[in-house]
Amino acid sequence: MTKQEDIAGLEVGYDIPAAIGMSIDEIQTPCLILDLDALERNVKKMGDYAKAHGMRHRSHGKMHKSVDVQLLQQKLGGAVGVCCQKVSEAEVFARGGIKDILVSNQVRDPAKIDRLARLPKYGARVIVCVDDVANVADLSAAAQKHGTTLECFVEIDCGAGRCGVTTSEAVVEIAKAIDAAPGLKFTGIQAYQGAMQHMDSYEDRKAKLDAAIAQVKDAVAALEKEGLRPELVSGGGTGSYYFESNSGVYNELQCGSYAFMDADYGRIHDKDGNRIDHGEWENSLFILTSVMSHAKADKAICDAGLKAQSVDSGLPFIYGRDDVKYIKCSDEHGVIEDKGGVLKVNEKLKLVPGHCDPTCNVHDWYVGVRGGKVETLWPVSARGKAY
Amino acid sequence: MTKQEDIAGLEVGYDIPAAIGMSIDEIQTPCLILDLDALERNVKKMGDYAKAHGMRHRSHGKMHKSVDVQLLQQKLGGAVGVCCQKVSEAEVFARGGIKDILVSNQVRDPAKIDRLARLPKYGARVIVCVDDVANVADLSAAAQKHGTTLECFVEIDCGAGRCGVTTSEAVVEIAKAIDAAPGLKFTGIQAYQGAMQHMDSYEDRKAKLDAAIAQVKDAVAALEKEGLRPELVSGGGTGSYYFESNSGVYNELQCGSYAFMDADYGRIHDKDGNRIDHGEWENSLFILTSVMSHAKADKAICDAGLKAQSVDSGLPFIYGRDDVKYIKCSDEHGVIEDKGGVLKVNEKLKLVPGHCDPTCNVHDWYVGVRGGKVETLWPVSARGKAY
Repeated sequence: MTKQEDIAGLEVGYDIPAAIGMSIDEIQTPCLILDLDALERNVKKMGDYAKAHGMRHRSHGKMHKSVDVQLLQQKLGGAVGVCCQKVSEAEVFARGGIKDILVSNQVRDPAKIDRLARLPKYGARVIVCVDDVANVADLSAAAQKHGTTLECFVEIDCGAGRCGVTTSEAVVEIAKAIDAAPGLKFTGIQAYQGAMQHMDSYEDRKAKLDAAIAQVKDAVAALEKEGLRPELVSGGGTGSYYFESNSGVYNELQCGSYAFMDADYGRIHDKDGNRIDHGEWENSLFILTSVMSHAKADKAICDAGLKAQSVDSGLPFIYGRDDVKYIKCSDEHGVIEDKGGVLKVNEKLKLVPGHCDPTCNVHDWYVGVRGGKVETLWPVSARGKAY
Repeated sequence: MTKQEDIAGLEVGYDIPAAIGMSIDEIQTPCLILDLDALERNVKKMGDYAKAHGMRHRSHGKMHKSVDVQLLQQKLGGAVGVCCQKVSEAEVFARGGIKDILVSNQVRDPAKIDRLARLPKYGARVIVCVDDVANVADLSAAAQKHGTTLECFVEIDCGAGRCGVTTSEAVVEIAKAIDAAPGLKFTGIQAYQGAMQHMDSYEDRKAKLDAAIAQVKDAVAALEKEGLRPELVSGGGTGSYYFESNSGVYNELQCGSYAFMDADYGRIHDKDGNRIDHGEWENSLFILTSVMSHAKADKAICDAGLKAQSVDSGLPFIYGRDDVKYIKCSDEHGVIEDKGGVLKVNEKLKLVPGHCDPTCNVHDWYVGVRGGKVETLWPVSARGKAY
């Protein structure tokens, strides 16, 4: 966790958005703030859930890109390790001391394969996904060159429509190739159904996940017939983890957004028809923004635009306010409808971003707040690590 | 310009996407590449245009956020200085040696005003926008405290619907207050019509700009009546600069996107009905991406998703290819329709991003390429400087 001395010499307003001990009103906007109490409650709740259901929880680091948030998830939420999407992210987590790292993605570029194969030297278990038998020889050669072991998940496309194979025959073929390759170990299956996570209705999500579970069970049965029982069957997100946990075939979850929440996830419904941000998970991540112009009576302009967030999944909403509404986002400005003219220049508002993952990726720091004061500053350690 | 020694010790694939001298095939993706020949032609063309029309060109640094690109615009394109949107950006440009800096935005937070008022100590002329008479005393106090002069533009909202006043009376009131305030100088008018820049039709854009010009002329006449002739009348973007240049009232342009181009700007039409990226400006900015999965016959998955670009203004297109199409963008993946199955794993593609400004803001480096080789690496110096 960041200490005062780690940020000594950094200038507030240039290098960092706040200093430890500052009141929330002095924070330089726009920036990301974390409600530490809410974050800790989310992390503990997911940890308790996973434990009660006998599931490993490998928290998804692609969301927060932060060694500090990951350490909190391990310490307070019992997370077994991290998953991430890029080799450069895995490097950040390995250098940060995380000991169980899954790159839940394909690695095909020769330079990236070489970097990946060096990672176990940090003392970390390293797992990577494979969806093409042609990848196996390259991974094996790199592991042998570096004298390391790369563990492999065969990736199943169970509905997301991105990477991954679709038939059990293909799963078995790749698993056999991995099993036979020096330097590699067949460890299990990656089966994350990304396309259903944001469907509003619980029943719609369940139907998609039932199909995914059937597909994964078929693949596991085919693997077992060949004596290749998967040690880990991994998947599950904030919109589905209860399905995987009760599937009888998955044993590892990969939830990310539950910790921070965002506007797009928040509006999906639980089993009882309630928004999941009204009880299941709390908003702990906000873009703190300031009003910086109110030259028109019914419109306030705030300082958080496209350089402070991603709007791919819709606009942010203003937390705790129904009298004003964020209605338009341009590069550096947000237009806020303020029919009653209630907002004042320099007034601060908390925005819940439409989509947390790419929003976190444009910021360098999380400002951790408790009791109205800045308690900590955490770097977004893997921000920009897209390689 | 970055030299080999500036990046010594930085690791390719972790800190930087490429090394100088590398061939394009070895660059680590996803990353931004600049076609230096195309960039230089764009920069020179705009510079020649401004010169021929007797206009100052203050190139917009909010787009590229790079001291190196700005220096190129000054050296090769005769740009007189930079405009930017945030105090922290202005600090980057001042520290980088830029001597004429406009913050084309309101600055209201006390800490930001204080930082702004220190900037002239770098030897730079510093101009800021004002749209509220209540801002004048704060700016004046800070300038006096630091013994500097802050020059001020009164901002007119001439159609963008963000900051800025809408009546000539308000312009005069604020200009008078600035003129009377110690430490401040009334220098001119900011009148950027942001809302019309991306309208497809030249005639539609012209109609909007004609209205803006009339509004600005009215304000200038009202100011002159008070003996407050504006030295600079500034505005104009890539979709409008010819209107301001022929207006008889503007004398400074603020174009940004012309240098890099993007998909959203590219599709607007010039006077003759041609897309402006088919002759007026060249695409010089690309997201270089690699195919990293082709497990489905008709779909290739590339490594540039939402962490490598902003899709607020639509998806990217694949430069120079009409046989394959980027059809979906998720956090780390792009789905490419490849009906003919022509793409190979590790094949590299050049994406033209939907919107250059927020796309540049997620990357740390521009990889400058000429003749198929990496010639330079330029830091995105003000990336993340949103405060």
